[in-house]
Amino acid sequence: MAAVGEFGLIAALSGWLPPDPRTLVGIGDDAAVLAAPDGRVVASTDFLLEGRHFRRDWSGAHDIGRKAAARSLIDVAAMGAVPTGLLVALAAPGDLPVSWARDLAAGLAAECTRAGASVVGGDTARASSVLLATTGLGDLAGRAPVLRSGAAAGDLVAVTGPLGHAAAGLALLSSGLSAGRADDPLIGAHQHPAPPYDAGPEAAGLGATAMIDVSDGLLADLGHIAAASGVLIDLSSARLSPGDNLLAAARSLDMDRTERGSTPEYTQALTWVLAGGEDHALAATFKPGTALPARWTVIGEVLAGPGNRYSALVDGRPWAGTRGWDHFTDRG
Amino acid sequence: MAAVGEFGLIAALSGWLPPDPRTLVGIGDDAAVLAAPDGRVVASTDFLLEGRHFRRDWSGAHDIGRKAAARSLIDVAAMGAVPTGLLVALAAPGDLPVSWARDLAAGLAAECTRAGASVVGGDTARASSVLLATTGLGDLAGRAPVLRSGAAAGDLVAVTGPLGHAAAGLALLSSGLSAGRADDPLIGAHQHPAPPYDAGPEAAGLGATAMIDVSDGLLADLGHIAAASGVLIDLSSARLSPGDNLLAAARSLDMDRTERGSTPEYTQALTWVLAGGEDHALAATFKPGTALPARWTVIGEVLAGPGNRYSALVDGRPWAGTRGWDHFTDRG
Repeated sequence: MAAVGEFGLIAALSGWLPPDPRTLVGIGDDAAVLAAPDGRVVASTDFLLEGRHFRRDWSGAHDIGRKAAARSLIDVAAMGAVPTGLLVALAAPGDLPVSWARDLAAGLAAECTRAGASVVGGDTARASSVLLATTGLGDLAGRAPVLRSGAAAGDLVAVTGPLGHAAAGLALLSSGLSAGRADDPLIGAHQHPAPPYDAGPEAAGLGATAMIDVSDGLLADLGHIAAASGVLIDLSSARLSPGDNLLAAARSLDMDRTERGSTPEYTQALTWVLAGGEDHALAATFKPGTALPARWTVIGEVLAGPGNRYSALVDGRPWAGTRGWDHFTDRG
Repeated sequence: MAAVGEFGLIAALSGWLPPDPRTLVGIGDDAAVLAAPDGRVVASTDFLLEGRHFRRDWSGAHDIGRKAAARSLIDVAAMGAVPTGLLVALAAPGDLPVSWARDLAAGLAAECTRAGASVVGGDTARASSVLLATTGLGDLAGRAPVLRSGAAAGDLVAVTGPLGHAAAGLALLSSGLSAGRADDPLIGAHQHPAPPYDAGPEAAGLGATAMIDVSDGLLADLGHIAAASGVLIDLSSARLSPGDNLLAAARSLDMDRTERGSTPEYTQALTWVLAGGEDHALAATFKPGTALPARWTVIGEVLAGPGNRYSALVDGRPWAGTRGWDHFTDRG
């Protein structure tokens, strides 16, 4: 990229990204100008850093672009807003091929299209590794934002989108078991999560009392709702039973271990469901009796309680496993 | 920072930053919600990376916070918009003292206050060096955005804010001549530039035909306007004469050189004015005859021409020196 320089890169990125009529001023000026018809704008910013959030040998540029866009756009949707725009800051080594940046831009654009948004601006810099910072913007279309703080005792807890898939895929990659499994949907879930953007405004329209995207892990993220709302959240493990794909992945990992533990595959798969983040499913609470569309699965209920970030329970008890897939214990 | 963790840091940052009634939802939810009364939102994102844009031994955390905020907020003002909000993504080593982050937050808040904006949201991550990505948001208050592409032959070229101060200050720091000069305003200009935010909407109100903030250097940035507008820009060196402070700094650097060149101090100081960025002055073009407030200085005029990014001239000729202060030659 050093050969084309900053201005060449910006011009190229601009050409690779499709235009959008809602973008009043796009890439190439001091700032972008985007329609905000609601009179409010929803905005969220996120890092996606090489070595911490992705590895270039495990994910291609297109997937990394999709993932970077997804992280910020689903945050916007989790407020009940419709994603409209994305700003992208990219820092990269000088010897990064321009084709890598082009594929990244294509991935960013593809995920924006999935969300109904477009890339409206950005920044470039040189760095010793690839650094991405994305800012998602969105419009509430007249609705009140759905906060983390509105859950009340008696509410239903529901989720839409996959749980634990990205964590299982990352475990397969980490274990070295991914060779010859490039088409495994679990590995794909890690490489390019596909958040259910339109479910955010849908939930807002259904009167969701609180909502969050599952990025840290289901229990951790519901713990944020519990803390902000001052409630307890009780999940039913029976409603979170891992699918055959997760059980098979857990089995394949266990078989590969030189030192076998006593962890049953079910516990490991359930840990991915409860503690694996980065699928960017949406979790929300709804007033009791709310008729939910089929893609929403009720997984628990809201109970009275003081509420802190450890106040998301499973079957009435604290989850004894850790809340991160990569540190799980053999107790469920 | 590792001891307090991500959630502790976010909570602390939230407490350190003053609230703002225009922030409908601030730090602590999935996304921020900010008023956009104009029905459009102006947005710009920038990196500020340790080692590339700042050094922790040359700038304190408060100054780095001010500078990070300034970079994005002046981009918003350069569109003619009033800055309203700032999102901040911060990645840092685990051993960074929490007090450093507190001082950074104070600097971010202080610069937002100068611009009339506030910190509305952010992200945190761990990295081996300090990485900042800021996104400035703003409101056009009913005015058309001032683009880079509107300059026309006959227009005046004017600037407000210092030119070359930050570059001179960085040269003093780089040369090791800064010892005992901590109060030198030129060093301060590098550490915490003070862009003239309100001059952006002012210029828009005066009918500015094009505008940009001087971040790459005056000639480089006016070259962006020339290229976008398809014009030539001719500056008058007599109207850009370096002040005594720049001449004195140039003299002190020259005296310190073991290998003396033939560069007169005037050429070096003028090079800072023409090629030094990061003061974040505003440069704009106005229709001929526009009555400009005293803080705007007319420095040249717009001429017909095809226009490319080398189409900013000095006294009718291409500037023979390089466009970056740190690579300047001995020819002016």
